[in-house]
This record gives sequence, C-alpha cells and structure tokens, in this order.
Amino acid sequence: VVEIDWSLEAAEKGGFPHYMLKEIYEQPWVLENTLGGRLREEEGDVDLGLALDPKEVARVHLIACGTAAYAGWYGKYLLEALARIPTEWDVASEYRYRDPVVDARTLAIAISQSGETIDTLEGIREARRKGARTLGVINAKGSSLTREVEDVLYIHAGPEIGVASTKAYTAMLAAMVLLAVRFGRARGTLSKEVARELLQEMRKLPRLVEEVLERRPLIAHIAEKYHQTQDFLFLGRHVQAPTAYEGALKLKEISYIHAEAYPAGEMKHGPIALIDERLPVVVLATKGPLYEKTLANIQEVRARGGRVIAIATEGDEELPKVAQDVVYLPEVHPLLAPIVSVVPLQLLAYEIAVLLGRDVDQPRNLAKSVTVE
Amino acid sequence: VVEIDWSLEAAEKGGFPHYMLKEIYEQPWVLENTLGGRLREEEGDVDLGLALDPKEVARVHLIACGTAAYAGWYGKYLLEALARIPTEWDVASEYRYRDPVVDARTLAIAISQSGETIDTLEGIREARRKGARTLGVINAKGSSLTREVEDVLYIHAGPEIGVASTKAYTAMLAAMVLLAVRFGRARGTLSKEVARELLQEMRKLPRLVEEVLERRPLIAHIAEKYHQTQDFLFLGRHVQAPTAYEGALKLKEISYIHAEAYPAGEMKHGPIALIDERLPVVVLATKGPLYEKTLANIQEVRARGGRVIAIATEGDEELPKVAQDVVYLPEVHPLLAPIVSVVPLQLLAYEIAVLLGRDVDQPRNLAKSVTVE
Repeated sequence: VVEIDWSLEAAEKGGFPHYMLKEIYEQPWVLENTLGGRLREEEGDVDLGLALDPKEVARVHLIACGTAAYAGWYGKYLLEALARIPTEWDVASEYRYRDPVVDARTLAIAISQSGETIDTLEGIREARRKGARTLGVINAKGSSLTREVEDVLYIHAGPEIGVASTKAYTAMLAAMVLLAVRFGRARGTLSKEVARELLQEMRKLPRLVEEVLERRPLIAHIAEKYHQTQDFLFLGRHVQAPTAYEGALKLKEISYIHAEAYPAGEMKHGPIALIDERLPVVVLATKGPLYEKTLANIQEVRARGGRVIAIATEGDEELPKVAQDVVYLPEVHPLLAPIVSVVPLQLLAYEIAVLLGRDVDQPRNLAKSVTVE
Repeated sequence: VVEIDWSLEAAEKGGFPHYMLKEIYEQPWVLENTLGGRLREEEGDVDLGLALDPKEVARVHLIACGTAAYAGWYGKYLLEALARIPTEWDVASEYRYRDPVVDARTLAIAISQSGETIDTLEGIREARRKGARTLGVINAKGSSLTREVEDVLYIHAGPEIGVASTKAYTAMLAAMVLLAVRFGRARGTLSKEVARELLQEMRKLPRLVEEVLERRPLIAHIAEKYHQTQDFLFLGRHVQAPTAYEGALKLKEISYIHAEAYPAGEMKHGPIALIDERLPVVVLATKGPLYEKTLANIQEVRARGGRVIAIATEGDEELPKVAQDVVYLPEVHPLLAPIVSVVPLQLLAYEIAVLLGRDVDQPRNLAKSVTVE
C-alpha cells in the first residue's frame, strides 16, 4: 500500500482548475492504491486482512447514502454473482427506520467516503444492535465509522475535496470486487481460475482508466452539444444500472440539470413517455451478456426520436448506426465495466457544469459530508 | 367476493371524460372487492385460500414492472414489518437476468395487472427454475401468469382500460396488506390484537378513499398553478416512499412532465441541488413514526426556496406554515396511509395532463400491457 499524504499540501489543485477534475484524473493512481498489495493472482484470491469469516455470513445488508449507495448496489450484484450470498442494498435513511430483519448471520456493510455520514453511522448502529456482524468500507482513517465496525476495508482514495464524489466512487467499486472475490473464494462459489481472470483484469484497470481520460476532448464536444438541455435520462442494465444512476447523480449535483436514471429494461414501463427529440439519453451499452438487450432498448429510444449518447466498447460497429454520439472505452471484463464506464460520465457532468458556469467544487445546497440528519 | 362483469359494457366510461378518471373514482368499490369476504376481524386474520404454508418461507422475492413494482416495494415493507421475512423487491427486467440467489424456501411473488407482462412472466419462470415456490398477485383471470404460479391472489379490480394504472395499484397495495397479515399471523410475528386493529382500519379504506375523491376541486386548483412546470420532485419515507415513486410515475406517464421521486431522507445526498423557486416538491407528510423527520425534510426544501405541496393528515397545523399547498387526508393507520395517499397524486397527474391537452387514456409511447421485451 502506498502511504497517502493527507496534508493540505496534497490536496492542492495541482494545476487543475477544480478539485473535481484533479480527482477525476487521480483515478488511475487511486485504483493502484485500492488494489495495492491486496491481489494474490497466484492463489486466485485477495488479502484483505479481515477478522470476519465469510462462511459464517448468510446474508449481507449494504448501507450507504448518495454515491456510496450506488457502490453498494454494484456490491449487491457482485456478492450475489460471485459469492451467492443474498444481498440487500438500501439508502441509510430508509434502512435505519424500517426495522430491518437482521440476525447474527447477517453482515451489515456500511460504505462511506468520510466515515461521518450520520445516516450511515446510525444505520450500522441499528444493524449492530440487532446482532449483525459489521464491516466498514471507508476512505477517511480515524473517522467515526471506523470505530463503529468490527472490520474496516479502507479504499485508500486519498483526500477528496470536490463535493461531487468521483475517485472515492471508483475506489469503492474496486473494494466491492475485492470483497466479492474474497467471499466467493472463502465460500467455494468462485473457482481459482475465474477469480484469477478477474484479478488479472483488475490489474489493468488503472491503465484502462488512463485511456478513458484521453477521451476528454470528445466528451467536451458532447457537452457543448447538450449543455443547454433541461433534462437527461441515463439507462443501464445489471452492473451498469448503478453506473447510470451515478452518472445522473453527478449531472444533478454539479450542473443542476434534472437527470434521472432507470434500469434500461424498465424504461418501457413509464419513462419512455418522456422521450422526444429534445431529451438526450445516455446509455451504458458496453459489451457483456446484456449487450443485445441494451441495443434493443436504444432502438426503442430512437424510434421515439430520442437522442442517444452511447458508452460503448471499442470496436462496436452497431452503435454508431443508432446513436448520435458514441464514446468508446477499452474492453474489460463485463463485471468490471462500471469502474471504467463511470469515468466519461464524470467528465460529461464536469464539462457541462463548467459550460454552465456552475461552482463545480461547491455546488449549491450540497455539503461534502452530511453530518446532520 | 362480488363477481366482476368483464364485458366491454362494464368498461364503458360511464359518464366520465376518460377511463382513467372513471377508474380513479372506482377505487372505493374496488377496495371493497379486493377485501370482500377475506377479512376475519374476529380471529384477527384473513382468508386467502392459499395452498402455501407461510411457515415454510424463509425469504420473499417480489417481482414486477412499473406501477406493480412499487406495490412490490410497499409489500417488502409490510412483509418485513408484520411477518419478519427478509424480502427483496426488484423490477422484473433486472431480476430475470441477474441470476438471483433462490432456494426451495424462497417464495417468489409476481405482481401484474394484466398477467401478461413478459418480463414479469420470465422473472417468475426464472425463480421457479431455481426451485422457488411461486405466487401471483393478479387482476386478469385466465391470464398467462395465472398458469405459471402455484397460488394466485386475485386483486378483483375489474377491467382497467386507462394505460396509466390507478385502481389496480390501490388494489395491489390492499393485497399486499392481506398477504402480510396472513404471513404474520401464520408465523406468529403478528398478534391477534394488532392484526384486528389493522383489519378494522382496512374496512374503513373504501369510505376514506371516497372522502379523498372529494378533494378534487382543491387538486384541480393546484394543477392549475403548476401545470406549466417542466419538472417535479416527489418525496416520501418508509411506506410512503413507494407512494412518492408512483405519484411521479403517474405524472411522467400522462403529462410527460419530468417528475422524479426520492426517499425524502436521501434528498440531501444529491437531488437537493436541483431545488430552486421553480421546482414544485410534492411531499408525503402524513402522520406516522417518520412525520417529524419528513417535516425536517420539508424545511430543507423551503430553506432553498422550493415550493412544497404537502399531502397531510387532517388536523395538521404545522404543514400550512411551511407548505404552499396542503391536501388533507382522513386519518388512517400509518402502514395503510399509502392506499389513501396515492389518490390525490393520481388526481394531480390527471388534472395536469388534461390542462396540457394530453391524451390521458393513451399516452404517447406507452402500451397498457408490455408483452414484448
């Protein structure tokens, strides 16, 4: 693990006009840091130093707020896919008040960049009172959350200053993969070979994100086209559904454009009524088992005159036929695609907010860490 | 059970300008029908004629699309609160492709008005292939879904013609209460006294909904004020979170206004950035354990200049001080509040759509029953 310098010095903008942009560009380095020293490709496993025995866990509850909650949603998909543990994710403000069904074989996982989010703290306390085992996925060392949980998995993203979270999100996603691999291996639901393949793909992530950052001029061009728009729709399926939600949240937070996300397959059950020639629709359409289904969803949007911005895998020749704009990303394991795919959405939100003259690092009405209810 | 005449005759508009409005006004009668013959107040139980033994169920998966999915979300809260069964709800297009963790003690419940929604049908087939017990909460007799499940709980809402579902939703909510009471009683997690109290409150629902329908002139006045708005936000907590989502969905579907819903406690983690003096915010603020928290959320909206339309309980003297508009509803058990509270939201969507000259019964891009993927 590379030791992070938490001094104010390290938090300077380092030549970038905004902290947010600096933090977006730090993501390759952050991913190195999150993974650093933890991957054991030889054994097809990871070393997280957890006290907890994954075989004793019958159910997982993921508790978080905002961006971290979408990392939790991604974690649900991974824990179910790789470790076959029934997993619920919930926003903490709902979890803490709904008297959740918890027992001694429930593992409650709280995810928080600051480790100070009050709803998340109260959510994990509620789970603990009900007898759950507890784990924190946390960025800030020494934060309150670290003292509330039995185990901590640090994401090592370094200080995040921009109110809209970027590098902490990709680090949380990587941490979710690490957890799911560990749990899958310990529980015997994930073979050494499949785990090794995933870990080898994870090693590539910093380089792949580096490549994606080079797409910034194209994304700035797309932002130029659409920044006057009042509304946006973001669509994705399976692990790319949380990516769609996080993309919409970024745009809301810093541009104040009303962006909403939907699981792409659910679009026909309502939001399709909104689609006309003025509504840009960002679709996560990277290669994977649901690629063809997502392509069909794009055709539904096109048939109603919607304008499509597709996030695609390099070499895809179908999407340019149906999408107005295509952002190509390097190929990666479909379960890891969100870690690469969220980066152009962060840049899109950033470029649009700058064009609109917004205060990118200090958007109106928002606090970096919500420590009151 | 009152037998429903499914003939075209019965589906005529009966003096109403639109099927949707007729169906909104049918809700008191529909609720009588859903409950009819099933309540056993004396025993504090309900008779649903299910083959299934609730004591054999360790987990529930609720699978549905669109409006029915929000009924599923409500069902999750109730099954956990009254029967203490860990319950997941999911949109069917996600459920069927995410390789859910299912075993022989999992009960998969599919909810569908038409019983023909392809994603829901495929979702329940997937659960069955994996060994789950199956139950359908269905309106249309003889529909495909009735043949895919071991048990059927009919909602008896009669034919629904308007594309935007209204009476089927309230009937589905009532069916969820019936299920949760039955499961809670069978599993010993719900006392006879508490069940009886709930059932007595349920008996009142038709009359309470009747009262709410009398608020239509006030709601028409609110619609007049806000129908030119581009965007809307809907907020609610706990069982009123699904109500907020259903209210936003109705408005999207028939007015094409971009309405989005959020759990009220999650607003601070993003959507609060959208709030300014042009954004109307509909808040479900009926009396219940989270009333004070919701009031605090309203104050956050007000502090940023947002305009608040509060759905409140009769006699509430706080809300007029912070909300521009207050729609008072008769008092009811907090767990049943959604069944009463969704009605003004249906009327609001209807009145706005009419003012905008939309085709209320046949909104653009939407089909009544989505039988293709």
